[in-house]
Order: sequence, then C-alpha cells, then structure tokens
Amino acid sequence: MLRPLGDRIVIELIEVEEKTAFGIVLPDSAKEKPQEGKVVAVSSGRVLDNGTRVELDVKEGDRIIFSKYAGTEVKYEGTEYLILRESDVLAVIG
Amino acid sequence: MLRPLGDRIVIELIEVEEKTAFGIVLPDSAKEKPQEGKVVAVSSGRVLDNGTRVELDVKEGDRIIFSKYAGTEVKYEGTEYLILRESDVLAVIG
Amino acid sequence: MLRPLGDRIVIELIEVEEKTAFGIVLPDSAKEKPQEGKVVAVSSGRVLDNGTRVELDVKEGDRIIFSKYAGTEVKYEGTEYLILRESDVLAVIG
Amino acid sequence: MLRPLGDRIVIELIEVEEKTAFGIVLPDSAKEKPQEGKVVAVSSGRVLDNGTRVELDVKEGDRIIFSKYAGTEVKYEGTEYLILRESDVLAVIG
Amino acid sequence: MLRPLGDRIVIELIEVEEKTAFGIVLPDSAKEKPQEGKVVAVSSGRVLDNGTRVELDVKEGDRIIFSKYAGTEVKYEGTEYLILRESDVLAVIG
Amino acid sequence: MLRPLGDRIVIELIEVEEKTAFGIVLPDSAKEKPQEGKVVAVSSGRVLDNGTRVELDVKEGDRIIFSKYAGTEVKYEGTEYLILRESDVLAVIG
Amino acid sequence: MLRPLGDRIVIELIEVEEKTAFGIVLPDSAKEKPQEGKVVAVSSGRVLDNGTRVELDVKEGDRIIFSKYAGTEVKYEGTEYLILRESDVLAVIG
Repeated sequence: MLRPLGDRIVIELIEVEEKTAFGIVLPDSAKEKPQEGKVVAVSSGRVLDNGTRVELDVKEGDRIIFSKYAGTEVKYEGTEYLILRESDVLAVIG
Repeated sequence: MLRPLGDRIVIELIEVEEKTAFGIVLPDSAKEKPQEGKVVAVSSGRVLDNGTRVELDVKEGDRIIFSKYAGTEVKYEGTEYLILRESDVLAVIG
Repeated sequence: MLRPLGDRIVIELIEVEEKTAFGIVLPDSAKEKPQEGKVVAVSSGRVLDNGTRVELDVKEGDRIIFSKYAGTEVKYEGTEYLILRESDVLAVIG
Repeated sequence: MLRPLGDRIVIELIEVEEKTAFGIVLPDSAKEKPQEGKVVAVSSGRVLDNGTRVELDVKEGDRIIFSKYAGTEVKYEGTEYLILRESDVLAVIG
Repeated sequence: MLRPLGDRIVIELIEVEEKTAFGIVLPDSAKEKPQEGKVVAVSSGRVLDNGTRVELDVKEGDRIIFSKYAGTEVKYEGTEYLILRESDVLAVIG
Repeated sequence: MLRPLGDRIVIELIEVEEKTAFGIVLPDSAKEKPQEGKVVAVSSGRVLDNGTRVELDVKEGDRIIFSKYAGTEVKYEGTEYLILRESDVLAVIG
Repeated sequence: MLRPLGDRIVIELIEVEEKTAFGIVLPDSAKEKPQEGKVVAVSSGRVLDNGTRVELDVKEGDRIIFSKYAGTEVKYEGTEYLILRESDVLAVIG
C-alpha cells in the first residue's frame, strides 16, 4: 500500500467522457480544467504550526474533483496512481 | 452534489447584459473586470493555523461579484459551475 | 447594496481637477499616482489568524486617498464603484 | 488633514543641498540613495496578527531619512506630501 | 554515519526497472516523475515556530517515493546517498 | 545623531587593505564578498509578531562583517554612514 | 574570533579529493553538489517568533556537509572561512 505523507492523498483517476455541453459556453482559456478521481489513501493528517495534527477533509472512497495539472504520477504494483495535496482538491462529489 | 473544500465555494454564473454606462467613464485597462454569480454550495469552513474552523462569510443563495479570471470550471450532471476561493469574492449583492 | 468581503471596501471615485502645483516639483516617474474616493460600504471586518474579527479603520462616508491602480471596477444599478482592499487605502482626508 | 492608515506616515520632503563629501568616497551604484523628510502625520498604529495595536516608532515632527523611491506623492490643499510605510524609514535624525 | 539536520532524511536510491504500463496512459508532460528510495537516516526532528520539536513521519528503513529532482547527492565512504527534505517525500510504501 | 528604526543599525565602513591570501584560494564567483564596519548606533530593538520588543545582538562599538551590497549610504554632518538591517550582519569580530 | 549572528555558523572548508565513484552513477545536472566543512564557531542561537532563543543543532568541531553555493567567504587573520546559515547544513558527519 501507499501511505501518503503530510497533507497528501493517493487517488485513482476516473476517466470522464467528454460530453457536449448543452449549457452555458465558457470558452475562456484562462480557466483551469479540472479532473475527477477516487481517493484510495489519505495521510494521517497534517501537522499545524502549533504541533497538533488535523485530519484531512477527504476520506478513502471519496470521489473528488481536482486541478488537472496537480500532483505526481506513481505506478505501484502495475496500477497508476496520482499523489495530490489536499489543497489541490476542489470538491468532493455526492 | 458538489461539496467544496477548504475556503472554496461553488457558484453558477449569472450572465449580465452589457448595459451602456451613463455614469463615469473609467477606461483604465489596468483594472480587472468582475463577474456575477450565485452561490450553490459552500465548504464547511476553513481551518485556521491554530486548528479551529471558521465559517465562510458567504452563504448558499448569495449573489456575489468575483474576479473574472478566478476559479475553475466544473461541469456536473450537465450544468456548468465555477469553484472559487472565498478570497476571490469581492462583494455580496443586496 | 454591495456588501464587500474580507478587508474590502466599496468606494465612489471623486474626480479631482488637475491644479498646477505652486509648491515643490517632484517629477519622479518611479512614484505611484494616488486617487481620491468616498467610502460607500465597508466589510464587517477581517478575520485574524487567531479567528477574531477586527473592524476596518475606514468608515462609511470617509474621503480617502488610494493607489491609482488598485481595486476592481463594479457597475451596480447604473453607478460605477471600485472595490478596494483596505491595505490599498493610503490615508483618510479631513 | 491627512490621517494615514496602517503602518503609514505622511511627510514633507526636505531638500538637501548636494555638498561635496570630504570623507570616504563610495561610488557603488548598487546602493540606494536615501532622502530626508519631516513627519507631519502618523497613523494610529499598526495592528499585529494577534489583534493588538502598536504605536509607530516615529512621531509627528521627527526628521527622518527614507529610501528615495519609497512612498506615494499626494498633493493636499496645494502642498506636496509623501505617504510612506514606517518600514521605509531608515532612521530618525537628532 | 550521516546525521541529517532540520526536516531532512538520508536515503539510498532504489533503481526501478521501467516496466511497460498495462494500465492507463498519462503522457502528460506537466507532471513530475517520482523515484524510489530507502531511508537510512532521519533527523532528530524539526523545530516548530513555538520551539517544540516534532519527529518526522518517516522512519529508518522505510521505502519511500519522492520527487525526482529533489535533494542533494552525497557520496560518503564510497556510497552515494541523497539528502532530502521530508516535505519532498510523497508516500511511504507498504 | 542618527537613530535607526526597526532592526536597523548605523555603521561606519572600515577600509580593509586587500592582502594577498596565503591560504586556500576560492575563486568562486557565486559567493558574496563581505565588508567590515564599526557599529555607531543600533535601534531600540525590533518588535516581534506578539508585540514584544527584542534587543539586537550587535552593540554600539562592535566591529562587524556584513554583505557587501547590503544597506543604504547616508551622509550625515559630513560623514558617510551605512544603514543596515541586523540580518545583513554576518558576524561580530573579536 | 568571529562570532556569527542569527542562525549562522563559521566553518573551515575541508578539501575532498575527487575519488572515482564505484557505485551508482547519477549524472543528473539538476542536483546540487555538496561540500564538506568543519565548524569553528556557532551563533548563540536563533530567536523564534515568540522571542525565545533556540540553540543550533550543530556544534563547534562538527564535520558537516553543506550546499556548495551557500554562504559568504570571509578572510580573517590570514585564514579563509565561510559563514553559513544553519539551514544550509545538510548533515553532520560521524
């Protein structure tokens, strides 16, 4: 297993089919494209400046949306994972 | 539903028709252009350095003005949203 | 009404006629040019790192001097406003 | 009157005649050139991260030396002033 | 022996054979490539801003994944080591 | 007299004759060249984030070594001085 | 003697002969090259944000490894020294 450190989590990518939007069009290239993932491991929490440890807000099993270019790819026992900082997680789905 | 993390909120864009100003003209290109939105979800608060959690100042349902280039577009169940940091919110309307 | 967030204020610009200085000449282009405004709304205060909220030093109705290129223009109900951070306010007049 | 905010002060410039140095010559162009001024107003103090307010170290009437390119020029009732941050003040004279 | 300081650790590199992925392909060049190592020494902990010392989250003997370009190579008694900051450690394996 | 503010000190330069080194040669241009000075005035201390004031580590009369390009030249009553931040002082001699 | 300030130490360089590595080859130019030294003086400690002073982790006499381009060369009584910040020290040897 991968045990992430600090404020990090390990996720598996969820491939989302590129549906045609029927809603508002926002072709503004200055905006980041997000991506989906499923959390497979979270750190034991991050340590605050005063030395106490706080649990992360995301839990194992959560489906999340994160900034597309964040994180580091890791291949472990034949599977690709991404290690992210919790601060790169935009929202939990559902 | 989308549950934003940290100091983030989820908004829907409000399209504002570009009325002709009858007031002061300020053609200063160094200034940012703001945009309007309606808050559809807020995080459970941000964690201070001392470990306590503080609620955000914006609430679900608020109409807000925010910096135009801030945030990340997210499409969820066919609708476009924008995930912003609360610090990118300039003002609440009304 | 516009309710600014964080350490922000809403001002209306005050147009100042460009009088000829009869005093010291300081044609130093490295210096910023300030501008005048009248405060029409202030936030409910900014939150310190320890979680307490402190009131702003400027009040509704104050005439202020601020850095010319600071802030974001907002048009609300036909009037132009500028949303500034309090830290961009240089001085209160009078 | 001008009431500066935060850690700011208002000064009037003091023009210093460019005497020939009879001492050590230091033609090192990497060094900043300072300038003199007289303090005409100081803020009510700056607010620390813990919320307490501390008085500035410079007082009204002090003659000071400051970094030449610091500050913002302000013309108020026909007189030129400079609004500086206290941290741009190098030393008090006398 | 090498006794690392601050939040540093000493590792030996583990050479990983470049297997062909049979999983998801992520040829996104914006992502960092991680690398594996085995921890051979850890510091006595890092000192927080309030003066207390906290132990590191990695222990001697841990197999870790870290950012490829992090750290400083050190040759000591004929062996190559890498000295890393704990914050460059992404995850512990196993 | 010059009374420096914050964490600043006032020094007089000490001209050091450029002796030929008989020791190790280190012609590494990436390293800064230090310079010597004598402290003629120190501030009343710097104010910490919690509002308490701490005395500087250098005292009037100390001979110091400092980073060559640090500080601001000041000419006061015909004498050249340099105003430095204490953090630019590398070491006290003797 | 040289008494370093803040978080600084004074070291003498130790020249290390460039042995041929018989181990792993890591010709990655993105990595820093470290260098060895012997500590000849340490400061009386660094002052934390809360005003307390903490002793450095390195002691007089320690052999250390540090980042090659860190520090400032000082020649004192005919001998070359290097003044470093403790944070530039990677590890203590032995």
